Amino acid sequence: MNLTEKILAKAANKKEVSPGEIIKVNVDLAMTHDGTTPPTIKSFKKISNKVWDPDRIVIVYDHNVPPNNIGAAEFQKVTQNFVKEQGIKNFYNHGEGICHQVLPEKGFVFPGMVIIGADSHTCTYGAFGAFSTGVGATDMAVIFATGKTWLLVPESYLIEINGSLNKYVTAKDVILKIIGKIKAKGAVYKSIEFKGETIYKMNVSGRMTMCNMVVEMGAKNGIMVPNKKTIKYLRKFKKSFRIYKPDKDAEYEKEFYFDVSNMGPQVACPHNVDNVKPVYKVEGKHIDQAFLGSCTNGRIEDLRIAAEILKDGKIHEDVRMIVVPASKDVYMKAVKEGIIETFIKAGAIVCNPGCGPCLGAHMGVLGPKEVCISTSNRNFKGRMGDPTSKIYLANPAVVAKSAMEGVITSPE
Amino acid sequence: MNLTEKILAKAANKKEVSPGEIIKVNVDLAMTHDGTTPPTIKSFKKISNKVWDPDRIVIVYDHNVPPNNIGAAEFQKVTQNFVKEQGIKNFYNHGEGICHQVLPEKGFVFPGMVIIGADSHTCTYGAFGAFSTGVGATDMAVIFATGKTWLLVPESYLIEINGSLNKYVTAKDVILKIIGKIKAKGAVYKSIEFKGETIYKMNVSGRMTMCNMVVEMGAKNGIMVPNKKTIKYLRKFKKSFRIYKPDKDAEYEKEFYFDVSNMGPQVACPHNVDNVKPVYKVEGKHIDQAFLGSCTNGRIEDLRIAAEILKDGKIHEDVRMIVVPASKDVYMKAVKEGIIETFIKAGAIVCNPGCGPCLGAHMGVLGPKEVCISTSNRNFKGRMGDPTSKIYLANPAVVAKSAMEGVITSPE
Repeated sequence: MNLTEKILAKAANKKEVSPGEIIKVNVDLAMTHDGTTPPTIKSFKKISNKVWDPDRIVIVYDHNVPPNNIGAAEFQKVTQNFVKEQGIKNFYNHGEGICHQVLPEKGFVFPGMVIIGADSHTCTYGAFGAFSTGVGATDMAVIFATGKTWLLVPESYLIEINGSLNKYVTAKDVILKIIGKIKAKGAVYKSIEFKGETIYKMNVSGRMTMCNMVVEMGAKNGIMVPNKKTIKYLRKFKKSFRIYKPDKDAEYEKEFYFDVSNMGPQVACPHNVDNVKPVYKVEGKHIDQAFLGSCTNGRIEDLRIAAEILKDGKIHEDVRMIVVPASKDVYMKAVKEGIIETFIKAGAIVCNPGCGPCLGAHMGVLGPKEVCISTSNRNFKGRMGDPTSKIYLANPAVVAKSAMEGVITSPE
Repeated sequence: MNLTEKILAKAANKKEVSPGEIIKVNVDLAMTHDGTTPPTIKSFKKISNKVWDPDRIVIVYDHNVPPNNIGAAEFQKVTQNFVKEQGIKNFYNHGEGICHQVLPEKGFVFPGMVIIGADSHTCTYGAFGAFSTGVGATDMAVIFATGKTWLLVPESYLIEINGSLNKYVTAKDVILKIIGKIKAKGAVYKSIEFKGETIYKMNVSGRMTMCNMVVEMGAKNGIMVPNKKTIKYLRKFKKSFRIYKPDKDAEYEKEFYFDVSNMGPQVACPHNVDNVKPVYKVEGKHIDQAFLGSCTNGRIEDLRIAAEILKDGKIHEDVRMIVVPASKDVYMKAVKEGIIETFIKAGAIVCNPGCGPCLGAHMGVLGPKEVCISTSNRNFKGRMGDPTSKIYLANPAVVAKSAMEGVITSPE
């Protein structure tokens, strides 16, 4: 069995599972956020009064923090009442950060776990060797009630990546390159298993970026065997965990090989994540906004890259650069390292941790025809605001350099 | 002549002015923000193509920063185009902070000036011995075009305040006490001239808080002779300025005397700023949100007071505490002093500098029946969100202490 199959077999209490099989699995951890908790509660109340295990549910406010309108405030109140009623202790309602950053940081994510979240980027936790995927509110309601869910065991794609990354080329560029190749509908309901020297050497932040974006090619999950850096990250929580590895004879529906040695920074152009081009092909394109943040690229490693470029520089007068640390932990590190000071001095707007403008809720909504270069994960038409606005996705170095120049610019 | 009359006489090129007289004055500085610039431009375009003096206009984005919806982004674009067309250099479009904090900080405000702003709290600059007041967009359009405006010389009230303030009692409590006495319609179109030992000893931040809120009793302006602390603040800009003082025989329509020696913290209860009670009379009232910030109380002195109380403490789990520094300068000082760390550790949400939730635009909008304790200046029905929500206005110490307890609590 491959890595995903091994974890699903364990979770289904079966010796073996095969692609196409429908299984019932025990869920180790369920996650919802401020946007998806109220609809989950609504469905849950139709089938149960008591959650299966309050300690296996984590709720994080991140999409509209602090509430940007009356409806958001009401939604949060609904959640707060439910949390009290059900005795859910793992509740982060004070802008702790983006759910996908908060869960690993707080020690909820370990290898071999089955983690289901009511958010499409739940696939992020594959970076730690966990099976994780997003579901809708009704599926989540059943999990809240029973601790179980059904899954169709996915076919798997193996993606092997080799080569060292050039300066200013990051995990974001690798995953953009892959999505550009496999395309947005090229891996629908597939499990993506990553391997290769690039992945083995990659830091935890980069691994999270890669797994985070597999859903942009339709994948059910993305997963990697934990490397040394990941194990070091997990050990600080002082919990025991078992690392799963694929069998030597594991089967994959397709295998892909990428050599990223000579690759430059990549950009996903409007309005599809798979419309990927090398940055030099879009250089000079005027921008109105630059966004550094999101569950894809809002970690301290991302902020450091951008700060290195912005150090002693100035953001272009026509560009609003918005920096949103992915969590309070990231934010505090950035304060202590002087990175926040660098951003402020350069002219950026540093907002409170959370999803920020990624989903167009607030904190940097795009007006008509405005153009944004963003470290986030989706550039769909109108996602960040007006339907005539445009989003280019790139790595933190490209975003920082472009913010300084007022046009898309390679940091190289 | 009193202080306001002297400044207005100078601005009107007259030897003397008297209450009730209509005069035409030269405006030394005109200010608009992201909300009021576009309507000003619209009216301006009907009467002129060129502003009278681009160097005497300051534009600050503060109400919706970064843009919280498509309309806000469009509004900001309209302003940006105008600024370029007119060659306005004093343009703060990257979340520099609240206009009323940014103008003094950047050295635009000096004693004796006539400063007109398209914002009702423009009266803040009276703290520096300037005449300053708010006007609507059409009046501002005429100022943009001509550098002049007409004024009805106001009648004046003299308010003398003596006594030292107790610990946890601040300038905010003094002005709330005064508003509670004079009432919301008690000083309509009056000039308020403050004097007395309390004012002479008060720091610049407190003086700004006091003058900021005179509009809450309907006043045209609030004004104080600069004290030593104010002169020290102004000297750092290395510009010469003349200090105006009232004549010894200056006339005032009414005179008020306050002794604040034994006063405790005050709270303005819903839904009027003049519904003022000592905090002990509302202690125990449940709160959902605590807001520390605004042009009234978002300065470093305010943040320090709150941080002292929150140090090593925890914000109540049911309360979202929102901290919005009044400017980037305040924010950077708070970062360096470790105050931001204190807020984050205590569980607060620290947002980017600007007006924050004060006006209910975003960043902490109140849901139905939610209650907020706030350091801001207005508690009108629905101002921060749902019309069934309630706002209590208080000083930073009361807000911080209440945030910890989950109910309105005196810090004493």
